[in-house]
Amino acid sequence: MREPSVRAAALVLCILSYLLVGAAVFDALESEAESGRQRLLARKRGELRRKYGFSAEDDHELERLALQAEPHRAGRRWKFAGSFYFAITVITTIGYGHAAPGTDSGKVFCMFYALLGIPLTLVTFQSLGERLNALVRRLLLAAKRCLGLRRPRVSTENMVVAGLLVCAATLALGAAAFAHFEGWTFFHAYYYCFITLTTIGFGDFVALQRDEALQRKPPYVAFSFLYILLGLTVIGAFLNLVVLRFLAASTGALERAARHAGPLRLGAPESRGRCPARRPARPGGPASVSHRVHQLEVWARDNLGFSPPASPRAVGGGRAGGPLARRKSI
Amino acid sequence: MREPSVRAAALVLCILSYLLVGAAVFDALESEAESGRQRLLARKRGELRRKYGFSAEDDHELERLALQAEPHRAGRRWKFAGSFYFAITVITTIGYGHAAPGTDSGKVFCMFYALLGIPLTLVTFQSLGERLNALVRRLLLAAKRCLGLRRPRVSTENMVVAGLLVCAATLALGAAAFAHFEGWTFFHAYYYCFITLTTIGFGDFVALQRDEALQRKPPYVAFSFLYILLGLTVIGAFLNLVVLRFLAASTGALERAARHAGPLRLGAPESRGRCPARRPARPGGPASVSHRVHQLEVWARDNLGFSPPASPRAVGGGRAGGPLARRKSI
Repeated sequence: MREPSVRAAALVLCILSYLLVGAAVFDALESEAESGRQRLLARKRGELRRKYGFSAEDDHELERLALQAEPHRAGRRWKFAGSFYFAITVITTIGYGHAAPGTDSGKVFCMFYALLGIPLTLVTFQSLGERLNALVRRLLLAAKRCLGLRRPRVSTENMVVAGLLVCAATLALGAAAFAHFEGWTFFHAYYYCFITLTTIGFGDFVALQRDEALQRKPPYVAFSFLYILLGLTVIGAFLNLVVLRFLAASTGALERAARHAGPLRLGAPESRGRCPARRPARPGGPASVSHRVHQLEVWARDNLGFSPPASPRAVGGGRAGGPLARRKSI
Repeated sequence: MREPSVRAAALVLCILSYLLVGAAVFDALESEAESGRQRLLARKRGELRRKYGFSAEDDHELERLALQAEPHRAGRRWKFAGSFYFAITVITTIGYGHAAPGTDSGKVFCMFYALLGIPLTLVTFQSLGERLNALVRRLLLAAKRCLGLRRPRVSTENMVVAGLLVCAATLALGAAAFAHFEGWTFFHAYYYCFITLTTIGFGDFVALQRDEALQRKPPYVAFSFLYILLGLTVIGAFLNLVVLRFLAASTGALERAARHAGPLRLGAPESRGRCPARRPARPGGPASVSHRVHQLEVWARDNLGFSPPASPRAVGGGRAGGPLARRKSI
């Protein structure tokens, strides 16, 4: 079995075990509370049913109407501000579901809109994240100079710690703001920010759904949109820190293909000019690819504060280390 | 203004315009239908209120109870199968919201679970996607050999067309299956599969929510979980096709940092051994990085069927071309 296949198989095993553990814990944490809620609801609904003597049909109708009316309580969701909010949740894949296209034409447009919008968003936040990292790096260098360090260097650890602080600050700021505007507890507002910025977007807590905020509170609407977009930039900055891992990951493919394609001419014209006699005799095109990629990684780690993962050539470590190394980076 | 900053600014402009256009279209498509639904609901609820003479308080209570009872109609959501389903929607960031942790301890665990699970999932589907692309490439080569082609090559176009066909087949297969099992129209089932596999996950259509399917239909539950995970692998395969774009995107960072860090020693030991006298005198470390990255891209395109984007050195094209080139790749 080839190394990349072993790595893929190991990752699949990791994720299945992770899902099983998660399922067990969520079952333990939520199952009991769910039964309690269910019993309480059944009792209360029974009381009201007896009090007014609904027919079973009307009871069902009342429930259906309540469910259908629920989204409208936030006011008009599809006026421009609401549609803008919805468009953000589509291309960022947050997808709260507080609003979802009700018409078939809306559904069709939504699919095409996501098809173009999601990659565009991915690229944009990657690019903004790279800019943010460059800024953080400059600030850290300046700070170290101020502290009188000669030849200051920004290490991976510096970047990761700074990134964690920026993320924590972003979440805390958002939590404070939404707790104030939505009347949530700080914890619930923090949970809302986390679930939003990871693009999970359950929709159990959704900003701008009270007091027709979308129509009546333009400054708060602007703040919410801006917070989501800036918050995702901060997340993008973290993802950007692992960009070179993709390079390392692709090395395996480069090498495998190189075996079919023969030696890779990465020698560059100038070196060709220098040692013409040696090039044809030089073996191991593939090896020289991975060697250069490894050099790129080492150099990048030393100079950019990137910490590349175990190269696919050393999958023994990559197998267990792969996902773990990446977990560390978030 | 530096080239990467220009690129980032251009992307931000693109995404803002895209959101404005989307908002306008969703407003036009949904706003009218929303008003209609709202009027109809108000009328029906008014009729029932008059029929049974609810107090305003009881009316509100009935609505609250109906909303709280709704998730329970799918049966127990937090038994093992339901919790496994929920765990999938967390680490894949689908986040339907059909179930969301009701307890604070559940919310806390959910945040830590996502923190480790999302990067693990990202890496796993990237890795599986790479394996799938390698398989597709081998199948295409074999097919071309069967057609009697000498020196068959798999081009970017071949890979993209094959990828599109696999995606279309995955969506169509899922749509047919869920239309059958859930009693949805094919269009609605297709919409559900699309919104799920893009990880938007509105939650307006959610599989396994009827007739206590989670408890009573284990084979259908297994199929649904498997479909989501395999479907996301197919999407991962597409994302994997753009892996080398990240390499190209990072070139800019490498070069800028290299300007501070001095010449990059990518010459590799063996060449150092060969031309010792020339190395110290060799200029343009940074240029030689981008040169090698460019060579990697060109070589990879020719040998792997990758089509790298305009390198950040040629941002004139990359500015508008960047996102468009990436859109093409999805």
